Amino acid sequence: MRLKDIKSPAQIKNCSPAQLNQLAAEIRQFLIEKLSKTGGHLAPNLGVVELTLVLHKLFDSPKDKIIWDVGHQAYIHKILTGRMDKFDTLRQYKGLCGFPKRSESEHDIWETGHSSTSLSAAMGMAIARDLRGLDYYIVAVIGDGAMTGGMALEALNHIGHEQKDIIVVLNDNEMSISPNVGALHNHLGKLRTAKHYKWAKEEIEYLIKKIPAIGGTLARTAERVKDSLKYLLVSGIFFEELGYTYLGPIDGHNVSELETCFRQAKRTKGPVLMHVVTKKGKGYAPAEADSDTWHGAGPYKIESGELIKPVEGPPNYKDVFGQAMIELAERDERIVAITPAMSSGSGLNPFAERFPDRFYDVGIAEQHAVTMSGGLAVEGMKPVCAIYSTFLQRGYDQVIHDIVRQNLDVCLAIDRAGLVGGDGETHQGVYDIGYLRMLPNIKIMMGKDENEFRNLLYTALHLKGPTAVRFPRGNGVGVPIGEFKLIEVGTWEMLEKGHHVAILAVGPMVQLALKARDQLAKEGLKPYVVNARFIKPLDEKMLKELADQGLKFLTVEEHAVSCGFGSAVLEFFNEQGYEHITVKRLGIPDVFVEHGSVAEQRREVGLTVENIVHHVKQLHLRERKVQRA
Amino acid sequence: MRLKDIKSPAQIKNCSPAQLNQLAAEIRQFLIEKLSKTGGHLAPNLGVVELTLVLHKLFDSPKDKIIWDVGHQAYIHKILTGRMDKFDTLRQYKGLCGFPKRSESEHDIWETGHSSTSLSAAMGMAIARDLRGLDYYIVAVIGDGAMTGGMALEALNHIGHEQKDIIVVLNDNEMSISPNVGALHNHLGKLRTAKHYKWAKEEIEYLIKKIPAIGGTLARTAERVKDSLKYLLVSGIFFEELGYTYLGPIDGHNVSELETCFRQAKRTKGPVLMHVVTKKGKGYAPAEADSDTWHGAGPYKIESGELIKPVEGPPNYKDVFGQAMIELAERDERIVAITPAMSSGSGLNPFAERFPDRFYDVGIAEQHAVTMSGGLAVEGMKPVCAIYSTFLQRGYDQVIHDIVRQNLDVCLAIDRAGLVGGDGETHQGVYDIGYLRMLPNIKIMMGKDENEFRNLLYTALHLKGPTAVRFPRGNGVGVPIGEFKLIEVGTWEMLEKGHHVAILAVGPMVQLALKARDQLAKEGLKPYVVNARFIKPLDEKMLKELADQGLKFLTVEEHAVSCGFGSAVLEFFNEQGYEHITVKRLGIPDVFVEHGSVAEQRREVGLTVENIVHHVKQLHLRERKVQRA
Repeated sequence: MRLKDIKSPAQIKNCSPAQLNQLAAEIRQFLIEKLSKTGGHLAPNLGVVELTLVLHKLFDSPKDKIIWDVGHQAYIHKILTGRMDKFDTLRQYKGLCGFPKRSESEHDIWETGHSSTSLSAAMGMAIARDLRGLDYYIVAVIGDGAMTGGMALEALNHIGHEQKDIIVVLNDNEMSISPNVGALHNHLGKLRTAKHYKWAKEEIEYLIKKIPAIGGTLARTAERVKDSLKYLLVSGIFFEELGYTYLGPIDGHNVSELETCFRQAKRTKGPVLMHVVTKKGKGYAPAEADSDTWHGAGPYKIESGELIKPVEGPPNYKDVFGQAMIELAERDERIVAITPAMSSGSGLNPFAERFPDRFYDVGIAEQHAVTMSGGLAVEGMKPVCAIYSTFLQRGYDQVIHDIVRQNLDVCLAIDRAGLVGGDGETHQGVYDIGYLRMLPNIKIMMGKDENEFRNLLYTALHLKGPTAVRFPRGNGVGVPIGEFKLIEVGTWEMLEKGHHVAILAVGPMVQLALKARDQLAKEGLKPYVVNARFIKPLDEKMLKELADQGLKFLTVEEHAVSCGFGSAVLEFFNEQGYEHITVKRLGIPDVFVEHGSVAEQRREVGLTVENIVHHVKQLHLRERKVQRA
Repeated sequence: MRLKDIKSPAQIKNCSPAQLNQLAAEIRQFLIEKLSKTGGHLAPNLGVVELTLVLHKLFDSPKDKIIWDVGHQAYIHKILTGRMDKFDTLRQYKGLCGFPKRSESEHDIWETGHSSTSLSAAMGMAIARDLRGLDYYIVAVIGDGAMTGGMALEALNHIGHEQKDIIVVLNDNEMSISPNVGALHNHLGKLRTAKHYKWAKEEIEYLIKKIPAIGGTLARTAERVKDSLKYLLVSGIFFEELGYTYLGPIDGHNVSELETCFRQAKRTKGPVLMHVVTKKGKGYAPAEADSDTWHGAGPYKIESGELIKPVEGPPNYKDVFGQAMIELAERDERIVAITPAMSSGSGLNPFAERFPDRFYDVGIAEQHAVTMSGGLAVEGMKPVCAIYSTFLQRGYDQVIHDIVRQNLDVCLAIDRAGLVGGDGETHQGVYDIGYLRMLPNIKIMMGKDENEFRNLLYTALHLKGPTAVRFPRGNGVGVPIGEFKLIEVGTWEMLEKGHHVAILAVGPMVQLALKARDQLAKEGLKPYVVNARFIKPLDEKMLKELADQGLKFLTVEEHAVSCGFGSAVLEFFNEQGYEHITVKRLGIPDVFVEHGSVAEQRREVGLTVENIVHHVKQLHLRERKVQRA
């Protein structure tokens, strides 16, 4: 059996452990090679090669349900279910998705991308299965990091209570995206080493040796004490207390051990927690040595493990953020940075080194991150909660109920606002303007470049009440970084005066608008170009002035066009009783935008220089029509 | 020391246990009397009388921080902090808030309303305290139900890891709003009875008695085994494993025991979990007997414990929902009801009795509830996830990432959509239209009366893809209930044809619009009245027809005016290139609406018949102006 011949998991049902090990080696080879060109989540996948092979050997997917929490570790699953030939297109436009995708395969029965959802999904499926009188296994594979997410804990609690037949595979690699956090993590560490157990076992065995000397009752007692201790110390008391049969910890790279354990799990009634210890990056030395860097990486040189640097470009927004945070924290000792398991992704590692006491990575726990920021604020600190737009969705109630309603001085630094590229539809940050701008008290802003982003962050930290400073994924514009300057709340920047049409652009869309201006100039058209750096409050004065001049408006934002910035402009004109105002809104239509490069995604939804040019011209035509009428 | 003389907690610092018990009796008397007139959360408050007294005796609020999770149990705290004389106005317009409120008192240091936030707030405060080098205690009082909320578990995990000095008081009353759910609950039950411990203790003591016979080593072993067992079985292994010093369980109505335990907690370094067992309704027999009914109740007769029935009115929406669910489930065995700890509040208790296998109360776990519904849907069931609008905020990411993005057949039955009355600003359901309508795939609807609500629910369950059926708190209109009928997606109902102005009203606002029509008729004005029962998709055909007739529009919704239904209408006209259309949008302005009756809240924001009349007239005036121009 060679890897290239495998079209379906049915083909590995009869593989011996030796054959599986051979396949594992081939899979690692394949992944290391393919991902060296496309990039992708190498380390997490190298960690679950044997686990995935054994899962597909012992369970009958798709009848049996295999659910991949987060889902970036499902590459081997994709390889084994007939998608090996698509790996050249991984995470690329119209190519293989980096996460499970129902439209790709009947084996992808649940889509993921965000973490900690798998147990809830498994519970829903288990209820359905039992109500329908069907008989199949449900296996959820969840990392130790994802397990600390609130919703996973909610589900863990519920599954334990209901005693449903679900196999939870805890893929314990001692590290989530950032080093893992939390007491549960410590508990897992104890289980891994099980020192308590060894100590207790020795003591008890000594005790038992003495038993014949002191008679039957004590013998029974000692036996029971032994059982009890074993139960308590070895079997994962935390999980046993929650109602699970705990199996493990076992070596997740040992095929035979995995098989034995899964067979036992299959025989067990009620929920099973199977604790599998794996190594991220297993089998590729550079990734083993630095699984943080190799969690999700770009192309690399296989031999040296050297990452192929992208063409030298302007600094990345996250690094600008991290640097700005250090400078701001040096000036104001009240500033504290909070991140939910994204210290590296948020560019906060240098901050963490510089200000270890003022940096809190709370693990995958967005809700807690937001509300904890509120607690810091009521006691006089200036918390900056760094969170991706898509993950802030998970702290939405906390933003409303704890931060905005109490009008606390919390700054939400919203990273990855807009289209995000290869991670695709689960990770697009295209709803936050809408879900935030309808809330009282909050001020929402986004800069046209990295220097303005710094100034807005600086401004936010000088304001009373909650603020949201959005910034995009990827590189800045390459502008010089200046001293921090305050920007007056609710003021936009007039970049270009012109006639007939005003382009109101948000964030990175400003650069597109400027390019559109250049193109239009060749045709003698000259729109106004406005950097709409405050989304709430709007620059009402400027809007009125422009409207009073009889201009038509084109709003451009990398956000759902529904409820977005353009919609806020419409609402403003409506409230002010302006009628006869023409506003064309460009943004993301009512669809989910799949993976690809940001440029491709923008092209798909019409957020391009060409489309801006087109719509400015259209507005000019309308202008002329009206004039003729 | 008599209760009436207490103006500040400083006055009880020197009270003896006997005096505290005397005060406790007076407080119970006071609460039972006052709440018999105003209504309120009687049972939860009767459960924490002694706990609150001892807290305020041993801690120096507001220097020491006392955080009330959920906050409906803070009445005694309010009494002791100078607000006793305001209890006649409890939960009434401009009166005493039913939850902690920073503007009311310096002792209310953190506002709550939704559950499970207190530990995150405490953690934020603890970090701030330690960074600032200050020295005070932080006490979070959290119920056993709230402890199962994901964010509380996230915080529990983080606090344990960071080993901050925080005292977590687990107020274990064996019941949250609905009977408690989950494995953690079972664990607490074990702690309460501690049978394991008694058994193990006896065995070990027997063992120890034998020790002199077998020498020193064994003696030491047995001692250590005893310690270990005690540690494991008594001390709340779950919490100890998470890094807490566990104290308890103790009797929460025993003042002396509470004092001893709190003194010990104050001496302990690192996080303490103090497990206090209380009885909801303690001291008032009717409330003790049925703490569910008495969780939050209206006025009652003190002697008999008979609730004073509100004036006979139309059926409550929640009961209409519960009844409809039974009828629908009888026709379609795929229907499953899910509620996050709101089985009673959602009117689902009769459903639960009728279909125990198809009813899941998952506890306070909104995230899990939503995603679990998705799991049910992928396996062929028709889940109806019943959830209050304000609590759905906590499952927002799950709605986006799991339900809407995967386009699953999940029906969100959104209760308490709109203004909610006495619970006030934490509970208003006024953002869901905005945060849902910008998502692809979902259909959003709301009926003008309880019969149409039933039909929309019926319709939703016949549709493919996700649906949201909103319904308000309180009574229906009193219309006859008919057979279920399908309503065509995206169709509105023309209730009245007229001229010049069309009122587009959502849900309960339709009734106001009809009354406004009646008043306007007296003045010879005759607007169209439209029941806009689909919020997404809009009835585009009708909108175009009305617009083409040159009508002006008045939209009326009990929702934030920003991003709401009216905004969707604006967006529609904008997208369609309709210019010169006049739309006036009525809804909730950019503020949080405080407690009061729904009628008072509506008056405050202008959602009244009078205001509709006023704006229809204004639109008529504009009409004439334009005609004159």
